[in-house]
Formats: sequence, structure tokens, C-alpha cells
Amino acid sequence: MSPFDELCSHARASAILESIESVLGWDERTYMPEAAGAYRAEQMTFVSGLIHRRRTDPRLGELLAQLTGSDLAKDPHSDAGTTIRQLKRDYDKRIKLPQELVEELTRASVLGQQAWVKARAADDYASFAPHVEKLFSLVRQRAEYLGYKDHPYDALLDDFEPWAKTADVAKVLAALRDELAPLVQAIMQSGRRAPVEILSRKYPKAAQESFGKAAAAAIGFDFQRGRLDVTHHPFCSGMGPNDCRITTRYDEQFFPSAFFGTLHEAGHGIYDQGLRTEQFGLPPGSFVSLGIHESQSRMWENLVGRNRAFWQFFFPQFTAAFGEASRGVSLDEFYWAINGVAPSLIRVEADEATYNLHIIIRFELEQALLTGDLPVADVPAAWKEKYRKYLGIEPPNDKDGCLQDVHWSAALIGYFPTYSLGNLYAAQFFEKANAELGGLDQQFARGEFAPLKQWLQKNIHERGQCYAAADLVKLVTGQPLSHAPLMRHLRGKLGPLYGI
Amino acid sequence: MSPFDELCSHARASAILESIESVLGWDERTYMPEAAGAYRAEQMTFVSGLIHRRRTDPRLGELLAQLTGSDLAKDPHSDAGTTIRQLKRDYDKRIKLPQELVEELTRASVLGQQAWVKARAADDYASFAPHVEKLFSLVRQRAEYLGYKDHPYDALLDDFEPWAKTADVAKVLAALRDELAPLVQAIMQSGRRAPVEILSRKYPKAAQESFGKAAAAAIGFDFQRGRLDVTHHPFCSGMGPNDCRITTRYDEQFFPSAFFGTLHEAGHGIYDQGLRTEQFGLPPGSFVSLGIHESQSRMWENLVGRNRAFWQFFFPQFTAAFGEASRGVSLDEFYWAINGVAPSLIRVEADEATYNLHIIIRFELEQALLTGDLPVADVPAAWKEKYRKYLGIEPPNDKDGCLQDVHWSAALIGYFPTYSLGNLYAAQFFEKANAELGGLDQQFARGEFAPLKQWLQKNIHERGQCYAAADLVKLVTGQPLSHAPLMRHLRGKLGPLYGI
Repeated sequence: MSPFDELCSHARASAILESIESVLGWDERTYMPEAAGAYRAEQMTFVSGLIHRRRTDPRLGELLAQLTGSDLAKDPHSDAGTTIRQLKRDYDKRIKLPQELVEELTRASVLGQQAWVKARAADDYASFAPHVEKLFSLVRQRAEYLGYKDHPYDALLDDFEPWAKTADVAKVLAALRDELAPLVQAIMQSGRRAPVEILSRKYPKAAQESFGKAAAAAIGFDFQRGRLDVTHHPFCSGMGPNDCRITTRYDEQFFPSAFFGTLHEAGHGIYDQGLRTEQFGLPPGSFVSLGIHESQSRMWENLVGRNRAFWQFFFPQFTAAFGEASRGVSLDEFYWAINGVAPSLIRVEADEATYNLHIIIRFELEQALLTGDLPVADVPAAWKEKYRKYLGIEPPNDKDGCLQDVHWSAALIGYFPTYSLGNLYAAQFFEKANAELGGLDQQFARGEFAPLKQWLQKNIHERGQCYAAADLVKLVTGQPLSHAPLMRHLRGKLGPLYGI
Repeated sequence: MSPFDELCSHARASAILESIESVLGWDERTYMPEAAGAYRAEQMTFVSGLIHRRRTDPRLGELLAQLTGSDLAKDPHSDAGTTIRQLKRDYDKRIKLPQELVEELTRASVLGQQAWVKARAADDYASFAPHVEKLFSLVRQRAEYLGYKDHPYDALLDDFEPWAKTADVAKVLAALRDELAPLVQAIMQSGRRAPVEILSRKYPKAAQESFGKAAAAAIGFDFQRGRLDVTHHPFCSGMGPNDCRITTRYDEQFFPSAFFGTLHEAGHGIYDQGLRTEQFGLPPGSFVSLGIHESQSRMWENLVGRNRAFWQFFFPQFTAAFGEASRGVSLDEFYWAINGVAPSLIRVEADEATYNLHIIIRFELEQALLTGDLPVADVPAAWKEKYRKYLGIEPPNDKDGCLQDVHWSAALIGYFPTYSLGNLYAAQFFEKANAELGGLDQQFARGEFAPLKQWLQKNIHERGQCYAAADLVKLVTGQPLSHAPLMRHLRGKLGPLYGI
């Protein structure tokens, strides 16, 4: 076997183990019996131990050293070049970390999540604070081991958005914030209010399920190669080249939750299903970054699913599926209802415009926590202050404030900004697709979603990790990442609705 | 770590991998998307490779050599003695087999099953015959590598019913056959016919599901530690000390299929759940043999589930659940319907009495195939002859004849007799339980199943592999295995029904 073939076969075997870990994780969250949790943790720990051993195998280091200077690595965007570069990147990162720190972080994050569940239920930040202290101290160590040039946050962000730099992300998010906050304010002062009560009528679960599945299939999620199940916290998980599982949850008193959740996860799934199957387990067949992943889910959820043309096609099916709830509702009223903007406390329930302000708040706070500029004890006060400043509202407690998200308890520091990056990428890609494909609206109104899906597949999915996210954006849209397309999209949609 | 602790920890780690294989297999048969099969095969092959490597690890051999003569191994029925003995047994068997033969058998069984599916659908034994030839030739080699004293079938049987000998099994099954065949004949000549049309009325799936689940829970299957799903071929699979999954299938035109299938799998599940959780992955926490496993499923399905006292308790719930189908049906009529005896062609649909004749036919044929006394080409004719002789009927084709079972195509030669052994063990255990617990009928009629379950748990489940099946039967019932208890049970039940 040639060194490159050996490298690929080594990586594919690791990917088999990772895909098995995904099956175990999916089962844990969908169908596993209640009492089976402890042993499932043992199974997953065992597999992740095997993965770690393989991914830091000295033989892998030898192969990578041998191949890095080789002809195969010359074109960094070729499949071979990408495979060598990205596997080396992963290997180099992993071997920098002492085994004890990796284990300590795993342990602290398991304990952290348990403490978080209790603290959130009891609205008791004080009991969670020691865990925040511990977790930030550990990720700070992690950042030091990994190394960084400008900001320790760079080292953490890099896990979720490879090659991204904190300063660049901060710049684009600040530009977004500076235009978004006034837009939200103008909406609030417009005196108009979306007819959101439509969405809180009775939507029977069975009808939601078949309507949501049909929509997911219509936009291109392949149910021969995937499935949709119910979980409390929706997610998308790929566990093989032809096996992508998405989940949603049904609230009979609130239509958007399951429907847009399903479109969102289906968007993740379409990305996953659009990766090249023959490259499964290798970098050219893997997703670029969490931000790019999120751009796909957000595109189908918001830019497509909350588009008026989409509903020109789906509204008749909607009224047929929900006769009772849709009685007397016009397409225009419904369209406004699903695009209503109002500051709210809970990130996951936020509308398309204010959502990014929630993210910016977290991004700012976690940087300050990491550097120590914000003492752990001061988080609740800082949280409230930011919400007042950016959203004009203040949480009455910590449960609906700084305790609402799982991320910090799970040591996922650096994850939040990828949500907003996803929104930015999505708008920028969509603008370009619209220009290139000429009138997506007319296609949507006819129920044609394949052209957009194919465009995304060709331009984004099939490229795997051949380009870093920032380069991919430039390559596909001809422009560096900017807040402008998202602002154009929001102004274009919300301006007419709110008369601003 | 002491050598014994190291041995246990080694075995527990292998068990984690085996349990993961079970999760993958369960998912494959329940929820996996259609297109994901090929990669699932890769995942399972990878894991089984890891298992094989661990289970033949030379370090394991060293530890076992060191421990076999030690004090810990002195009492062969103690947990430590059992652990050492059984792990040594497994290791010694595995290292006898050349890796190529193991792989060749896996490949031939995958191809064999694919060929069988097609051959069965097309009623084309000739296309399947070369696979039978190949598979029997491979298992013959396997038997030679493993070694045997009297009959090559001994070596194969030992995989499913450890320590059992072909001659002993043949003896007890021949005794059973000699009394069973005349009983079935007498039933046929009695002129009486069970009112089986009751069972083919309309039984809505949802009602079957809740009724079946309630019954499974009532007899003791713990849904906190397990679950029930739907598959085409029902099975029970343990995948952790607190994770046992059973499945069933619903036929709206035939009540017994799902209901007794659910009780059957719940019986397997109750055994699995009755094993000592702290010994999970070690021989004292593992089931003894397939025959003993089947005794538990058959006991709850037939000796309990087809018992009149069971229905004294459940019949009111049955009529409430199936108002339409149960209209005008008395408890006695229903009881007779579910205990009707009639020769039939298909094993899995056979009644409690004739079922064993189906097994005896297979047991006799596969011994002859293994020795070469029966040429592969002659199987269809031999099959028909045996059915004529033992059951008085003859299959009109091979689809409902020698092509009906998956076992031979999957290289599971030696498996069939464990089904009848299960029936024999079940009747013998039940007779003893009834004597010791004093009047199980009265308990069942009151809906009390816990005493029997606890008796089984104490006498059988919690003993794990501390005794071989034959010794366990003697220990629990005071008698060696015999056909007499099963015949007493069948005569006692069928005599009054058929007036013989």
C-alpha cells in the first residue's frame, strides 16, 4: 500500500469508529431505555478512547510527515492535498494536548452539564458558578497548549470554525450589531405587530408530522438515506455516507417550533447528504465548519422556509392540513406571523433578526470570561446589562438569562459565534445563488427546490474541506464575508412588513 | 491489578464491543434508513474484527494459563471459577480456528443469506444448493478444527448449546418424537377442531400494541430497562446490563402472531434482565445456552401465555380491547382456539405440540448433510418424506418446505435442536416451579406472575453460566433432562380439549 493509501485507510477506519459513536449518541437521545444511560456512557467512553488512540497514532504522524512535502500535497485544494493538510492539522492539534487534560475536560464537562441541569431548574447560578470557573480554567489551559497568536479565544474558536480568527469574527459581528440594533429598534417603534396568535392555535401532532416530513422531502432531504425522529433537543447527526438522522419536537400549541425546526435540521441533513459519499471519512468528504453547516440549516429554515414564495406553494397544503387553525387566515397574514420580530429572552425561540443579538452577547461575554476580564460571579449582572443594551429587555431571573444554554457547561466555548456566522454565510450564499439561478422566488412558488439544492451541492457540499470557510465564501460569492447581504435580506423582508 | 482483575477487565472491555455490535444490529433491523446497509456492514465487520482480536489476544491466553490452576478456579461453580473456566473455553475454541476460515465462513454466510432470499422467493432450490454445499463444507472444516469425539455435529452444537452432545440430544428428541407423533395422530383422528376462526377476525394494530405491552409488563418485562419495537422477524437483543430490546410484528388478521410473539420475546427479555447486572460481560452474568434461553421464552409464551388461568385474568381485558373480534366468544372457546393443534408446513407458525416435529426433522436432516449421508441435491425429497412421515402432510413446493428457514444459509448448523431443548427445559422447570410455589394457576388467575419470575431469576437467571445447561436442569429439578414433563404438560392440556 502506498503511504497515501495507508493514510486514507487509517482515517477511514477512525471514521468508522466515529460513525459508531454517532449511532450510540443518536440512540441515546431517541430510543434508549431510561435505565441504560450509565452503560451507554461506558460504551461511548470506550469508543472515544479508541478514536483518540487512532487519531494520535504515531504511525499517522510518520505517514503525515512523509506526505506533507510530497507531490500529492502540492495542490492544497485537491482531494489529496486536502486530505493530507486536514489530517495533519487534526493530528498536530491532538498531540499537543496532554491526555490528562483531555480526560479532565471530559469529566468536568459531564459534571458541568449535570450541575447545569440542576442549577437551571432551581434558578441557582451560584451553584453553577464553580463549574464555570473550573471549565473556563481548563479551556484556558487547552488554549495555551494549542497556542495562539492574538487571543486565547482563537485557539478555541478554531475547533468549531477552523482557521477563523476572533478579531475577524468580532469585526463582522460588530458591523452586524451596529446595523441590526437600530433596525430592531425601528421595528419596535413602528407600532405594528405581527399576527402571531395564528401560530398558537391548535396544530395536531400527526398533521404536523406529515406536513413537516413532506416539506423536508420537498426541499430535498432524502428519506431513503435518512430519517426523522422526535427528541427534546432537535439535532442532525450523520452516521454513514447514506445515513443521516434528523430530529424535531412537536408543540401542538405552537406551529413554528416543529416545522421550522424540521426545515432547519433538514438543511443540515441536505448538507450531510450532499457530501461526496466516496470521500466519506476523509476531509474532502467532510463538512467545512460549524458556521458553514449552520449556513445550510439557516438557509432552508429562514431564507427559503420563511420566504413568501415558499408559502405561495405550501399555503394550500398548510390550510388542508390544519383546517381548524388556518380558518380565516390569509397567506399574507400567515407570512407576517412567521416573520414577526420582537425582542425576547430565549435564544432558541428568537426570530430571524434578533437572534444574532443573542449570539453577540454570548460571544462578548465568553471572551471576557476567558481572559478573566469578567469574573465568573459577575456573569448574571453582565448578562442582564447586555440584554438591556442590545435588546431593550432584561431577564427576570437567571434561568431565562445566563443559565439558558448548555454550551458553557459542556465546555463548548467558542461555539456560539458559529450560529451567527451561519446566518451571515447563508445570506451571502443565497444572494449569489439567486443571482446565478435567476429568480429563486418563481421556482419556490412552483415548488421547485432542486435548482437551489444542486447549486449548494456543487458549490459547497461537494467541496468538503477543500477550502477553509472564509476562502469558500470568497470562491463562491466573489466577496469576503460581510454583514451586508444579511442586512439587505432583513431590510428587504422586514421593511415592507413593518413599514420602515 | 491482579491477574484475575485484569482478566475480568479484559473480558468486560470485549463485552462493551459486543454490546455495541448489538446496538448496531438492533438499529439495522429497526430504524436504519434503507440505503445505509452497506456502511452498516462495514461498521459491524470492523467491530467484530476488534472483538476477534481481543478474544484471541495472547495476553488473554497468558492470564488464563496462569489462573486455570489457581485457587480461584478451584470451585468450578463459583463466580471466579466460572469466569476462568468459561473464558478459557471460549479462548481455546477461538484460537483453534484459522483466521481465513472464520472470514470465509462470514463471507459465505452473507452470500448464502442473499442467495436464500432470492431462492425462497423464486421457489428455486437448485440455485441455493451450491451455497448449501459450500456452507456445509465450511462448517465441516470448522468441526474438524474444533475437534470432537463422536460426531462432527458435536462441535457445531457446542456453539449454541455448550457441552451438549449430539447423541444425548438425539436420544431425548427421539423419545419425544415417539410419544408426540401418536399424540398428534390421535388429535387428528379425534374429529374435534379448535374454533380457530376467532383468531383471524379483525384485531386493530393499536389495540394489539397496548394489550401486548401491558401483558409483557404484567409478566415482568421491565420497560425502564428495555423497549418493544416492530420488525419483520421478531427478536430479543441485550445491549447492556439495563438495556434489553425486544421486537414483534402485527398482523391485524391474526391475533396470536404479535401477542404470543411478544410474550415469547418478553420471556427472552426477562431472562436477560434477570442476569446479575454487576456481572455483565462476564460468564456469571451471561446466559447459559440457547436452549436455556429458549426455555424462558417458551415458558412465558406457552406454559404461561396459553394457560387457561392466564386467560381467566386477561380475558376481560382482551374483550375490552377487542370488542368487535371477541363478540360472542367465551373464555373456553378462546382458550381452545389458542391451543388448537394441527399439522402444518411452516415451523414458525406451528402449534405447541407439532412444533417439535418440525425441529426433529431439521435436526435429523442436518446431521445427515454434515456427514454426507444426505447429498445436498436430495434435500427437497428428504424433506417431503420426513414431513409425510412425522406430520402426515407434504409441502407442495420448496418455498414452504426446505427453503423456509434462514439458518442453513447463515451457517447456523446446530442451532435448530436448541428450540426443542427449550421446550423440554421449559416444561421441566415449570413442573418444578409449580410444585415448589404451590399452585401457579391460582396465582396466574389473580394476575400474579412475580412469584414465577422470581423463582426463575433465583434458580436460573442469577446463576449465569455457573452451571452447564444439563447440570442446571439437574440442580434445579433434581432430574436429568427428560421428555416426560413436556409430554405430561401436552397430554394434560390437549387430552381434555380433544377428548383423548
